[in-house]
Amino acid sequence: MYIPTLDDMKTARERVTPYIHRTPVLTSSFLNELSGAELFFKCENFQKAGAFKVRGACNAVFGLSDDMLEKGVATHSSGNHALSLSYAAGRRGIPCHVVMPRTAPQAKKDAVRGYGGIITECEPSTSSREEVFARVEAETGAEFVHPYNDPRVIAGQATCSAELIEQVEGLDAVVAPIGGGGMISGTCLTLSNLAPSVRIYAAEPLNADDAARSFRAGHIIADDAPDTVADGLKVPLKDLTWHFVQNHVTDILTATEDEIVEAMKLIWKRMKIVMEPSSAVPLATILKNPETFAGKKVGIIITGGNVDLDALPWMEK
Amino acid sequence: MYIPTLDDMKTARERVTPYIHRTPVLTSSFLNELSGAELFFKCENFQKAGAFKVRGACNAVFGLSDDMLEKGVATHSSGNHALSLSYAAGRRGIPCHVVMPRTAPQAKKDAVRGYGGIITECEPSTSSREEVFARVEAETGAEFVHPYNDPRVIAGQATCSAELIEQVEGLDAVVAPIGGGGMISGTCLTLSNLAPSVRIYAAEPLNADDAARSFRAGHIIADDAPDTVADGLKVPLKDLTWHFVQNHVTDILTATEDEIVEAMKLIWKRMKIVMEPSSAVPLATILKNPETFAGKKVGIIITGGNVDLDALPWMEK
Repeated sequence: MYIPTLDDMKTARERVTPYIHRTPVLTSSFLNELSGAELFFKCENFQKAGAFKVRGACNAVFGLSDDMLEKGVATHSSGNHALSLSYAAGRRGIPCHVVMPRTAPQAKKDAVRGYGGIITECEPSTSSREEVFARVEAETGAEFVHPYNDPRVIAGQATCSAELIEQVEGLDAVVAPIGGGGMISGTCLTLSNLAPSVRIYAAEPLNADDAARSFRAGHIIADDAPDTVADGLKVPLKDLTWHFVQNHVTDILTATEDEIVEAMKLIWKRMKIVMEPSSAVPLATILKNPETFAGKKVGIIITGGNVDLDALPWMEK
Repeated sequence: MYIPTLDDMKTARERVTPYIHRTPVLTSSFLNELSGAELFFKCENFQKAGAFKVRGACNAVFGLSDDMLEKGVATHSSGNHALSLSYAAGRRGIPCHVVMPRTAPQAKKDAVRGYGGIITECEPSTSSREEVFARVEAETGAEFVHPYNDPRVIAGQATCSAELIEQVEGLDAVVAPIGGGGMISGTCLTLSNLAPSVRIYAAEPLNADDAARSFRAGHIIADDAPDTVADGLKVPLKDLTWHFVQNHVTDILTATEDEIVEAMKLIWKRMKIVMEPSSAVPLATILKNPETFAGKKVGIIITGGNVDLDALPWMEK
């Protein structure tokens, strides 16, 4: 297992800069008052392809050697990594094969195809996903870029908090959602080296709290097909992301489905930005744990904005 | 009739600066490609109280002489002016009386009350609104701040395009929604003085096209209670706004309800921002009139972001 380093993050940053946005940091006086903290929202919903995952995807794709280009790249993803890898591959002009759950939001499938990705559908479980993917990988010979358990991907995601600490001085804590742990691992990589006093909290849906249980148990616990509105956070930790979580995360906090949806509506209504349910989990956990965050300067990673506007969580099904 | 001048805009700008945001200008490579133009979105949805109207409201409220403070201010409004005047009055610590149609979105009523405004409801027609307002005004003795036909309000709205031309150089055109004409009048006031080569287009729902018909007829035509999803644009022109429209607007373009909702979804989906149906009318008219805008640098005023998330126009009723 190769553990990416600060140098890998720096290389990634040079490599991906031409293809991504330096996203803005927004604030809300209303949400500051509500939380008792000073909140700084790093808006990766405004990122290329609509999510932070384009950072890791671009680092992997633009780091490929020339002899690997013809067969292209392949991945399995609940959505945003698929979009992002398709975007990155499109910019480099190479094929991108994507295994996606058939239940993924239609908006995400459309967008993957819009960027030129080639989709193969699987059942909405980790086991089915891995089985179908093995077949696609064997048939195409494409280079596998795992959505999170990949040092190239983690080094790419790490560029996000490198920007954040340049944009906001004196942060006490950063809260990011945790699914497979790619964003959290990148955050740990950067902050443990460049701003080691900043506490790192992972925020997770209670309905998919495998990372929180892993953290408390001291070893990886993986659930098959958990059900949560935060559809980007259903996947389990893997060895590389577990390394970062175990060594650098202060705590993993959870929120219920109702708390997540309420936090999401609060952000839409008060900040006027469109973001995903997954991105609302940090605010939900902050509002739930005022004793941890009150009076602190807290960075929040808004991880993505690719929602299906025709199937918002508060609409009747 | 006093017609506000460039000096009035400059005074307004100094007066309101402490109470408002200098809102960002966003771009979208997707929407540039779709329109064939270079589009610059001035995001007043991120403004205090969620709309540009806080500019005019603050100019009126903070320009009041001390002897007028005790009785406060009063207005009638379909929503955003009510919010904005309540916000401004709250910042100055004076009462604010608001007459609102009973059919106004619940989110707007809640927000007016949240800012401390005192609501009296009327029927959703111009005639009822004016009748109920006359009673409130007589009973309270409050200073009337008209939502648009007021030189203080127009001078305040004029500060928006003063920022825009500092933020984006070399604009060929600016497109703003038109209801009563306050934003368009402020835009005319600033651009006719500071950037006279910039063409000014007003964008209006076809279902409430009284301004477009007025423009063609050469005199004000007012409709009572037109029906459109763009609920901020139902009110008619008045003498002061008609002055600016008649003298400085290049054309008034219209869009159907479907075109407005489609443009709104396109902006939400691609730019990840929450904005009102009214704010989508400019993009709808630009996409409909490519021969007018292709190859041009075009500013678009996103006028506000106060939508009822539980009653979005594409949800089933």
